[in-house]
Amino acid sequence: MSMMPSSVSATKVNPDIQNERNKATFDPIHITYLIDEGKEKTKRRRYIESLVENDPDFQNKPLAFMTREERYTNSIRKALLAVRKMEKLGLTDPWEKQIFTSVVNRSEDPNLALHASMYIHSIANQMDFDQQSEWLESAFDYTVLGTYAQTEMGHGTYLRGLETTATFDPDTDEFELHSPTLTSIKWWPGNLGKTVTHAVVAAQLYTQGKCYGVHMFMVPLRSLENHVPLPGIEIGDIGPKFGYSNIDNGFLRFNKYRIPRENMFMKYSKVERNGTYLSPPRAKLTYGSMVLIRSFIVGSMGTTLAKGATISIRYSSVRRQSELEKGAQEPQVLDFQSQQLKLLPYLAMAYAFIFAGKKMKDMYIQSSDSISKGDFSVMPELHATSAGLKAYTSSICSEGLEIQRMSCGGHGYSHASGFPELYANSTPACTYEGENTVMMLQTARFLMKCMEKANNGEKLHGACSYMCEKLPRRSQAFHLEDFLNSELLIQAYKHRAHRMCMVASQAVQEQVRMGKPQHEAWNKSHFHLLKASEAHCHLYIVDHFYEYVLESSVPAPVKDVLLTLCHLHALHGISTRKGEFLHDGYFSGHQIDLVEKQVIQLLDKVRPNSVALVDAFDFSDRVLDSVLGRYDGNVYENLYKWAKSCPMNEKEVPDAYGKYIRPFLMENRSKL
Amino acid sequence: MSMMPSSVSATKVNPDIQNERNKATFDPIHITYLIDEGKEKTKRRRYIESLVENDPDFQNKPLAFMTREERYTNSIRKALLAVRKMEKLGLTDPWEKQIFTSVVNRSEDPNLALHASMYIHSIANQMDFDQQSEWLESAFDYTVLGTYAQTEMGHGTYLRGLETTATFDPDTDEFELHSPTLTSIKWWPGNLGKTVTHAVVAAQLYTQGKCYGVHMFMVPLRSLENHVPLPGIEIGDIGPKFGYSNIDNGFLRFNKYRIPRENMFMKYSKVERNGTYLSPPRAKLTYGSMVLIRSFIVGSMGTTLAKGATISIRYSSVRRQSELEKGAQEPQVLDFQSQQLKLLPYLAMAYAFIFAGKKMKDMYIQSSDSISKGDFSVMPELHATSAGLKAYTSSICSEGLEIQRMSCGGHGYSHASGFPELYANSTPACTYEGENTVMMLQTARFLMKCMEKANNGEKLHGACSYMCEKLPRRSQAFHLEDFLNSELLIQAYKHRAHRMCMVASQAVQEQVRMGKPQHEAWNKSHFHLLKASEAHCHLYIVDHFYEYVLESSVPAPVKDVLLTLCHLHALHGISTRKGEFLHDGYFSGHQIDLVEKQVIQLLDKVRPNSVALVDAFDFSDRVLDSVLGRYDGNVYENLYKWAKSCPMNEKEVPDAYGKYIRPFLMENRSKL
Repeated sequence: MSMMPSSVSATKVNPDIQNERNKATFDPIHITYLIDEGKEKTKRRRYIESLVENDPDFQNKPLAFMTREERYTNSIRKALLAVRKMEKLGLTDPWEKQIFTSVVNRSEDPNLALHASMYIHSIANQMDFDQQSEWLESAFDYTVLGTYAQTEMGHGTYLRGLETTATFDPDTDEFELHSPTLTSIKWWPGNLGKTVTHAVVAAQLYTQGKCYGVHMFMVPLRSLENHVPLPGIEIGDIGPKFGYSNIDNGFLRFNKYRIPRENMFMKYSKVERNGTYLSPPRAKLTYGSMVLIRSFIVGSMGTTLAKGATISIRYSSVRRQSELEKGAQEPQVLDFQSQQLKLLPYLAMAYAFIFAGKKMKDMYIQSSDSISKGDFSVMPELHATSAGLKAYTSSICSEGLEIQRMSCGGHGYSHASGFPELYANSTPACTYEGENTVMMLQTARFLMKCMEKANNGEKLHGACSYMCEKLPRRSQAFHLEDFLNSELLIQAYKHRAHRMCMVASQAVQEQVRMGKPQHEAWNKSHFHLLKASEAHCHLYIVDHFYEYVLESSVPAPVKDVLLTLCHLHALHGISTRKGEFLHDGYFSGHQIDLVEKQVIQLLDKVRPNSVALVDAFDFSDRVLDSVLGRYDGNVYENLYKWAKSCPMNEKEVPDAYGKYIRPFLMENRSKL
Repeated sequence: MSMMPSSVSATKVNPDIQNERNKATFDPIHITYLIDEGKEKTKRRRYIESLVENDPDFQNKPLAFMTREERYTNSIRKALLAVRKMEKLGLTDPWEKQIFTSVVNRSEDPNLALHASMYIHSIANQMDFDQQSEWLESAFDYTVLGTYAQTEMGHGTYLRGLETTATFDPDTDEFELHSPTLTSIKWWPGNLGKTVTHAVVAAQLYTQGKCYGVHMFMVPLRSLENHVPLPGIEIGDIGPKFGYSNIDNGFLRFNKYRIPRENMFMKYSKVERNGTYLSPPRAKLTYGSMVLIRSFIVGSMGTTLAKGATISIRYSSVRRQSELEKGAQEPQVLDFQSQQLKLLPYLAMAYAFIFAGKKMKDMYIQSSDSISKGDFSVMPELHATSAGLKAYTSSICSEGLEIQRMSCGGHGYSHASGFPELYANSTPACTYEGENTVMMLQTARFLMKCMEKANNGEKLHGACSYMCEKLPRRSQAFHLEDFLNSELLIQAYKHRAHRMCMVASQAVQEQVRMGKPQHEAWNKSHFHLLKASEAHCHLYIVDHFYEYVLESSVPAPVKDVLLTLCHLHALHGISTRKGEFLHDGYFSGHQIDLVEKQVIQLLDKVRPNSVALVDAFDFSDRVLDSVLGRYDGNVYENLYKWAKSCPMNEKEVPDAYGKYIRPFLMENRSKL
């Protein structure tokens, strides 16, 4: 199989980037196989990608050249076309469908994604058998289009605060949906604004005069004849956002809107004909889809960061700027240590998140398996891990993308770089599916419970087992080479995580001792609790990155390269958080000097392979959608071409000239 | 004078935000006076603002509802109108004009800003007397429109790398401007794309077969009759960017384009009729305008961060979410410690940057004065300080705006919040006028020279005098209250800055000892050099924030509030960079515990005054341009109104329905 992605034609490759490829110490294809989980899968992925790339129906002008309305219309067109084409191609495997749609959508989030995920997932998991047979088929056949409506204008992550009511009326055997306040208006659901015909709606269930908390309801929204909103429903787009320009996130206000009782999701709780409420066997089960999505965000943040790494590292290899040596050719900016410091740690993090994401997915699958067998004991850890890692990785991804963008100088700021779109479409991951700070505090709650158990002598398994480990109180790494010992580095992270958990736990206890009620003690300890969660998540990533690489069966030279990234990731993390390792003397100042010396040496070691390491992600030019990140490195000619084709250049003299500029200048001249 | 900005009408104020105002311990107007530098100036500023706010000509629909072309046209309209109106109003004071245009432009950067600044500044400072009389009037009278064209597609911060040539032809007494390569095409200048008639162009001067480096030339670009680019000039817009949607940043390619010899800027260097080149008395003088702009960026980053603080803190006072106490009303999110941790340190930083920015401006004015008297000794420090502070403050501003945005949850992501626009239009400050990393390294070069002098026993004055101070090797702050002692805190920052400079200097020396040539030794020490610069700039801000507040003549209770912010700023900075204070044992772990304890206590102390502290910035609703940041706190009703008026809601059923959605659904239904 060729090293070159299918999308690259035989045009001349920029010699600087070619030289980078020539001098790499390994063949990136081995890492591509590792990421794809096998040579056959790489082959299949590339084949599916080629189906889209060679299909003229999926072409369009650059997204940045379109108005929001054009982007919405174009994106809906492609989303529906993708459904049709996948059907014809017989693509049914979720992994294959995901590849297909992601190439269709390039840097945009796809429309109808909530139909295929949350809408169908809710039906399949929270409707009873009879209900499923009524609703599942129309969803799969796309005879209706659905979304998932939970968030309200005044209520986000805190589910119990939702205000929308669903009141059972035994006279008509219906629920009456109502938005009692402005803040209760549903707000944000994707495709709600203009596109869907149905929504799964979260509302407070009232029956027999009592509120039973949040439940789900199937709600028809628009006429299937002419798409006009049904009476009792006010619906629209919530207006332009930072990103997601192609998506019609919407609002929805109910005015005593009625649906049959059977439209309540009844797999777990039920309301009977007479209005009697039957409780679910286990309330937490309803949170399943959130955990699923969070688990998948971890790896996807790695992929996003990998796109940023590809663009910025390739560009840094062809961009020449400034001088190192007087009179010599301007150096590649990738040769500046300051540039390496920006780019190579995030390259390592991209790999770390991708591989830790695979571990997270495995954990989700295994835990779901246990849960389906009736073992609920795995749930708290699954919940805490997915919440914390979602927050940890999405925060770092957001921050990293901007550092990568700025590392491309002015051109990073142009839409031609792809960064503005990439950033604006991925930073919402810090907010959706549970706001990051709230997530980190939920993880902290789990950690505090584990600390309590550990302090009571209980043996802990899983991600918190380090709380019971007997570890040295001072690092045993004394020589420069000790800092390339994965066990010693992981130990340092364990020590830090354990210490930060102890500090947080003591902080809460101290507040309680001072007479504060539990909730206030907790609130007044957020400072330390957040640090505990961060340290815990950081350890998880460091640990599982090493584990995945060490367990992998790539050729030895390739494993060496990946291990170098593991070291860089672990050591750079210590360097940027050194206060937490120095605080109790676990590391001395001298040991931190050695850490930083190693970081600098590792930059030199990763530098020659950095282009090969981003090539290994194997993003096609179409998926990357960046003039700066092109595989062939021919940045400038294409930047020029891109600019010349932009809408502002359609007219040589802009309308503003005749309307405003000319009269202004003429008036000024006439005064002379 | 009323506390309420003029733009707020008498509508009902949200009770939560009113309550915040009621419980503040001070009247924000005193701080407003301090920021404006006097009661009279506040009055005058508000008056000028009211001129724009009450003028129907300056109204327009929300920017986020417009296409890029509409934004460009609207912004040009307003820019020209502002010139005309200021003329009629007799506004000539630069400060007053700046207020007027900033209210006109709201969150957008103004068009024609480069005409009023760099274009005129270059003529006034780099043309000789005869040239000025030819060009200055037309610029002031706006009979031509100009910009400043330096950056090229392949060349940014590194001036000497510019490729555009200006070759003198003695036969015709002309310069021939030429773009010899693709990378030499001028790229980025504001208003170059579609608007200006002239540009100040930076090009390599060739005469008598020799290159004399970069010089400036006055270049007519477009016909004054019909605005069509002149023969030999290819010109256009560089395409859409992350922000600056209203501005036509442009490209410019010369094809052997000729201008008279007299169009060279000849105040310092000259080319005589026969082609003889006469060198300038002092090359560095040509960098003056960059230094000016960098000096002003410092304060403006404070203002930008202050806008973010205003939006996020006001919103956090009306947003209620989650639960602290079971069964109680949902708390204001501002009551969460985690939220305070996000918002209050950046509030303090906004003040720190605004006040340090005033110090920086003073330094610029004093230094310019010395320079004009022939004392060039102040230049290195002026250059290094403005470069470093520009980089330091713009980086933190970028990072802070995103934290502020995310603190507003999902609504921060909507254009209604104002954050997307604010961020996208201010983050370029990290790149323009000298890329931040390059700037920090230039500051480091100055610091290393100062270190050398200090090591040689020279007495240093100004910002680096701490390198000669005898300071204790361990912090003398032992008790909790010692950490509210400004001298002890500034000492800590001095110690850290000095130490980081020593480490960096040793790093360079070690590389030299190992046999590396100077340029490589420097490059291999970027890691430490950047930290040295950061520590130096951080000290500057901490120090001057205290100084400004302590010197101010506000009433004692107000000074107390501001000092609390100084402490929070200093202590939070130690906490987030604690590794650098722990590394050599300057602070013990126990002392850092006290630092963090104080940070937490200060959050509680700042919290009740936080709304008053953002009110004190006195941004009118028009300037803030944010639904979330409204003075009256009536967020939800206005968010709803804003969304309903967006272009996507003009049609109830979108065009995409008839074109794509309906045929798709119908086909699916027909298959059943």
